[in-house]
Amino acid sequence: MFQALKEKVLKANLLLPKYHLVTFTWGNVSEIDREQNVVAIKPSGVEYEQMQADDIVIVDLQGNIVEGKLNPSSDTPTHLELYKAYPSIGGIVHTHSTHATIWAQASKDIPALGTTHADYFYGDIPCARHLTDQEIKQEYEKNTGLVIVEEFANRHIDPVAMPAVLVSGHAPFCWGKDCFDAVHNAVVLEEVANMALATRLLNPVIHIEQALSDKHYFRKHGANAYYGQHK
Amino acid sequence: MFQALKEKVLKANLLLPKYHLVTFTWGNVSEIDREQNVVAIKPSGVEYEQMQADDIVIVDLQGNIVEGKLNPSSDTPTHLELYKAYPSIGGIVHTHSTHATIWAQASKDIPALGTTHADYFYGDIPCARHLTDQEIKQEYEKNTGLVIVEEFANRHIDPVAMPAVLVSGHAPFCWGKDCFDAVHNAVVLEEVANMALATRLLNPVIHIEQALSDKHYFRKHGANAYYGQHK
Amino acid sequence: MFQALKEKVLKANLLLPKYHLVTFTWGNVSEIDREQNVVAIKPSGVEYEQMQADDIVIVDLQGNIVEGKLNPSSDTPTHLELYKAYPSIGGIVHTHSTHATIWAQASKDIPALGTTHADYFYGDIPCARHLTDQEIKQEYEKNTGLVIVEEFANRHIDPVAMPAVLVSGHAPFCWGKDCFDAVHNAVVLEEVANMALATRLLNPVIHIEQALSDKHYFRKHGANAYYGQHK
Amino acid sequence: MFQALKEKVLKANLLLPKYHLVTFTWGNVSEIDREQNVVAIKPSGVEYEQMQADDIVIVDLQGNIVEGKLNPSSDTPTHLELYKAYPSIGGIVHTHSTHATIWAQASKDIPALGTTHADYFYGDIPCARHLTDQEIKQEYEKNTGLVIVEEFANRHIDPVAMPAVLVSGHAPFCWGKDCFDAVHNAVVLEEVANMALATRLLNPVIHIEQALSDKHYFRKHGANAYYGQHK
Repeated sequence: MFQALKEKVLKANLLLPKYHLVTFTWGNVSEIDREQNVVAIKPSGVEYEQMQADDIVIVDLQGNIVEGKLNPSSDTPTHLELYKAYPSIGGIVHTHSTHATIWAQASKDIPALGTTHADYFYGDIPCARHLTDQEIKQEYEKNTGLVIVEEFANRHIDPVAMPAVLVSGHAPFCWGKDCFDAVHNAVVLEEVANMALATRLLNPVIHIEQALSDKHYFRKHGANAYYGQHK
Repeated sequence: MFQALKEKVLKANLLLPKYHLVTFTWGNVSEIDREQNVVAIKPSGVEYEQMQADDIVIVDLQGNIVEGKLNPSSDTPTHLELYKAYPSIGGIVHTHSTHATIWAQASKDIPALGTTHADYFYGDIPCARHLTDQEIKQEYEKNTGLVIVEEFANRHIDPVAMPAVLVSGHAPFCWGKDCFDAVHNAVVLEEVANMALATRLLNPVIHIEQALSDKHYFRKHGANAYYGQHK
Repeated sequence: MFQALKEKVLKANLLLPKYHLVTFTWGNVSEIDREQNVVAIKPSGVEYEQMQADDIVIVDLQGNIVEGKLNPSSDTPTHLELYKAYPSIGGIVHTHSTHATIWAQASKDIPALGTTHADYFYGDIPCARHLTDQEIKQEYEKNTGLVIVEEFANRHIDPVAMPAVLVSGHAPFCWGKDCFDAVHNAVVLEEVANMALATRLLNPVIHIEQALSDKHYFRKHGANAYYGQHK
Repeated sequence: MFQALKEKVLKANLLLPKYHLVTFTWGNVSEIDREQNVVAIKPSGVEYEQMQADDIVIVDLQGNIVEGKLNPSSDTPTHLELYKAYPSIGGIVHTHSTHATIWAQASKDIPALGTTHADYFYGDIPCARHLTDQEIKQEYEKNTGLVIVEEFANRHIDPVAMPAVLVSGHAPFCWGKDCFDAVHNAVVLEEVANMALATRLLNPVIHIEQALSDKHYFRKHGANAYYGQHK
């Protein structure tokens, strides 16, 4: 019934090993069908080489399995909280990609240090606060989503202009218009995280100027964008 | 006579170059047959490209060759001590994988800094004490195994919950239920070591919270695990 | 009409992913036809895998499209300023290659630390000053070119002996006799930037001696060169 | 006349790009025929993809071309000094491999930090003193060889037990029994240099114990070696 969606989500999941964003099964991609209010997501702990479209699990926004014979990713409740909080996003990616995870483990925002960052992320990429012990013990994956949403709200960050977050001590989540866009942002995040780490070794205090960040972000996004062929 | 075991151990050894864990012949994988009390292990100094199942050497727990025409890995006595001390393990891997070896050379435990680590290793990955000159000069490879076992005993570490160790000034040993599981852990160790190194450059003091470590370890291991399809 | 030029520039652009200098569409190569006073350049935001010779855009030195149905790279005005200021250069490359971009983000010259550097770049590779807010807001890409030219003039640097520059907070531009030579220099720049970064971690103050820099630069360049088969 | 030697040296040169030790033409391998007193070496500035056995140049120990239509590597005089000083070596490799070159640029010995190093190099890998301006200006490549030989003599280092050296501000030279053995050592040097760099970031003072260095070196080398199948 959700064949096209499952095939799309399978394809997006297979991009994770292609772009070297995952080791073994450490990552998952989902996409939401906003009309049917269902989410297609990778099954838990299944290897990418043998994954088929029919292994993709369809769940509703409460996490009930609508279609599929496997358990959905254990991170499904995090995806669902993000879809519920942010109606504008259509796809979500979770990976343990090396450099983004390093920043998450260090529990630090990835500072905006250049135009590569500014082309995709408007401002520093936030590292959400640590979960409390209670939030970890009960409904951990759901609380991970809620803490992300809380962090964005507290800092007044627009999830459309900031399609990535770091979870302290854990790893990144990225999102986008659809699941392919989310994977694209995950690739960029990893490269930006890599460059920011080494930049900090050479220069511990520098930051991109606001004018340059604005220039690059808005030449690719919004009404006055002039990058690419889309005008 | 041990054809199936030798083919399995060959296959596991060939995973080491596939996962970029070895340069030239710097690594070896073994598996124990607990019923026959024999261990199948890579021959010493033979290149992976030309290795055949019949090159795999079968030794008893005293290190005597039971089957095979080549010398077993010079690290065989280390494997044997680990198999004798830990009845629950079925496969062992030794590599000089880059980042795990860096931590071994630095003679430091790999601190648990994130959930990637906690998913596989319960607590910091121990770096065993340096061998004494006497332990190096006489029965060096056997003593390497004994020092690992001593370190785990002194720190009250369960080898099932901590399937890896660093040998000071040398390199890691990993283990698992069988030889494939041991290789899997060796891949994870290398990635965890890589991320821990860079995390320490960004944040010299952070450590994962106990509650988060518990959550991730026990959602994948033990009676209450809910990760994957194995329930 | 410019078929040969477009095919050459396509081929040079396709070298960027081959040499791992770009992620997605983050780079562009151009070449100038000095007789016709036109520049062939990559279209904006088109993926390398699907790019065809006919997608390459021909512009005049004012940036007007002479031939082609796509928008030229948004960085075209930077290329044009460099071609106008430096009659001796025939090809230009812009990438966000990882290590050169790290130095640009750190807003630091890449110091000449060894003969690998001296073989290609005579002296430290300059990082141009930051653009003012006004220069960013109006004609940003053209001003990027003008600031590069200003930096070279202020420091009395010869663009033939220094075929690369870093733009602060952004990324490198490289050039050469033609577009292939420019790509060659971009590959070298990336490797030199990588080695300089790590060298600085081991030794924060060292610099190549002038005599050694002279020796290596002039054994490959100029009237007394004796490297290679070109004499 | 020297067909077999030229084919062997070609094959060894082609291993340099295979093992990622060179960018473009930045490396060269030679082997000496001790009976004929000639050296076969890579031509200068020729790309690896198009190199043929007949491009390999045969020179005598004074550097005169005995056979071949191309110029030999500009580093030929360095090779010749090493062959003249060390009768026990049969092959030499020069590369700008990334991490070995980083240590050369930092002008520091690569400290022996682990058994990977001790398996191949007995003691710290020396970085030779800087050449004087006079040594650079006149007969630079020959003087590079002489300074290496001087450094080994001053420190009483045996070139058989230490088949590698760093040239300050430049890059490494490696050697071995023949050209393949020299390439093997160049691969190990690069990996050892990589691990030593990162180890120093984690632990600025540690060094391998003498007993452990002895154990590993002599279990692979000399009369009492027991590693591998060679007994």
